[in-house]
Amino acid sequence: MFARVAIVGFGLIGSSIARALRRHNLAVDVVCVDRDEDVCHRVAALGLAGEVTTDPATGVHGADLVILSVPVGANAGVADSIAESLKPGAIVMDVGSVKRAAVDAISAALPATVHFIPAHPIAGSEHSGPEAGFAELFKDRWCILTPAKDASLIAMEKIRAMWETFGARPALMTPDQHDLTFAAISHMPQMLAYTAVSTAADIEAAAATGMLQYFGNGFRDTTRIAASDPVMWRDICLFNRDALLQTLDRFSENLDALKSAIRAGDAEELQKLFERPSKIRRGEIFKS
Amino acid sequence: MFARVAIVGFGLIGSSIARALRRHNLAVDVVCVDRDEDVCHRVAALGLAGEVTTDPATGVHGADLVILSVPVGANAGVADSIAESLKPGAIVMDVGSVKRAAVDAISAALPATVHFIPAHPIAGSEHSGPEAGFAELFKDRWCILTPAKDASLIAMEKIRAMWETFGARPALMTPDQHDLTFAAISHMPQMLAYTAVSTAADIEAAAATGMLQYFGNGFRDTTRIAASDPVMWRDICLFNRDALLQTLDRFSENLDALKSAIRAGDAEELQKLFERPSKIRRGEIFKS
Repeated sequence: MFARVAIVGFGLIGSSIARALRRHNLAVDVVCVDRDEDVCHRVAALGLAGEVTTDPATGVHGADLVILSVPVGANAGVADSIAESLKPGAIVMDVGSVKRAAVDAISAALPATVHFIPAHPIAGSEHSGPEAGFAELFKDRWCILTPAKDASLIAMEKIRAMWETFGARPALMTPDQHDLTFAAISHMPQMLAYTAVSTAADIEAAAATGMLQYFGNGFRDTTRIAASDPVMWRDICLFNRDALLQTLDRFSENLDALKSAIRAGDAEELQKLFERPSKIRRGEIFKS
Repeated sequence: MFARVAIVGFGLIGSSIARALRRHNLAVDVVCVDRDEDVCHRVAALGLAGEVTTDPATGVHGADLVILSVPVGANAGVADSIAESLKPGAIVMDVGSVKRAAVDAISAALPATVHFIPAHPIAGSEHSGPEAGFAELFKDRWCILTPAKDASLIAMEKIRAMWETFGARPALMTPDQHDLTFAAISHMPQMLAYTAVSTAADIEAAAATGMLQYFGNGFRDTTRIAASDPVMWRDICLFNRDALLQTLDRFSENLDALKSAIRAGDAEELQKLFERPSKIRRGEIFKS
């Protein structure tokens, strides 16, 4: 499918894509580009790429597919540094978890001679680095594609076919639909988990009951993701600011309504407020 | 340990206690008291109790241990109805998940000739009813005891020994410490899960992206408990109102601070706000 694929940023996602490309024989050559020399050495030792380099401009030279799998905040800088080295007709794909900001930054930097297809594979793990990746990471996971209206259909179909070969389920959205969707079902829950743990710690500090040792399955489940990488989530907050604030403002309104019902001791209203989410959560779409 | 134990309310917890008493040979006779005649029939068919009755006053007659495992809101009525039938020297224990309201209601109704030891075993399951119980439900779980300062030491030690025999880890708190602790680590997370699901549904309804199908593991974990019984949680809100509001108010303050940092694009503050809970959640106490 591709003669030469350059993967810029060789962490969990980048190294999983490299493994999946090899597993399914989709690329003749894979080039690892990572600004961290140590990562480059480890990738070479793992045999995940035929070439390794810390210089993006060198790495993308001659590639017919360039994958940007760097933190969202690094996209603009990387796109700038590779713009003049890209082969005309090359496909550029990012894999970031925020799309509007990434699309704007990358589109502005790239020459008109290349095709840009933004993607967001809904996959991850608590682990990171090139050692943590695996070829099956994308199996049975959604991969959201947010191409521009005038994107090349040929490039789009190639990218879609690649993700399908990896076992993922591609879906189309606009960047704004994507960002609002993931603000609601991913970024907001993360903010709530962080804030719940901080709040429990605040209350414990004030009450001195050593309470955190008594947490049950409910607290364990709802706060598991609070162990996630603070830097990654800081960047998501910075780059998906508007959609996240819109979602959190709605959450605060709903929580205020719940607090009012608790304060008033309004049994009927409380039951109504709990039955809707309980039904939704037990429903079809949440079965898996 | 006990000649005759009456269990009032034979659901998941009540029937699990009956099974554990038998498993460990702690009671000669077990009496099932449940206002639902159908439950009484099923308990008799399951062979979980030697006697079954729908009348609390009859059921507790002659018992040296009376266990109240009814919804928190039903405690006062049951305590009233059994007060005159209790054997002098009997131990009464409730197992509700809210303690201040339960202790006040039950203490006020009971005669001075009996010993009241409030307990809260931190155990449960999504299932309910006498068929759902099992003897190992309390194994390796905390059981919080909140006796009054002048409670009988002998009664207290009997109850503690019973829970230890069930495999539980007894711990002592005041009712207020208990309620604040569980407001923070159980009731608040439940409110957040309900509200997160409602908010995602609100946003979906407005944006029409069919977003809920794209939820990943984060949303699944943080909202699993939103499938729980709305009636039970309505009662917890009604009976643990003050501690829950105190906790939710603190949560709202913390969330407002986070929203301000997002709105301001304050990278440093965001990272600080996330590093504390991330460290706590990855720390020792959350290992299991």
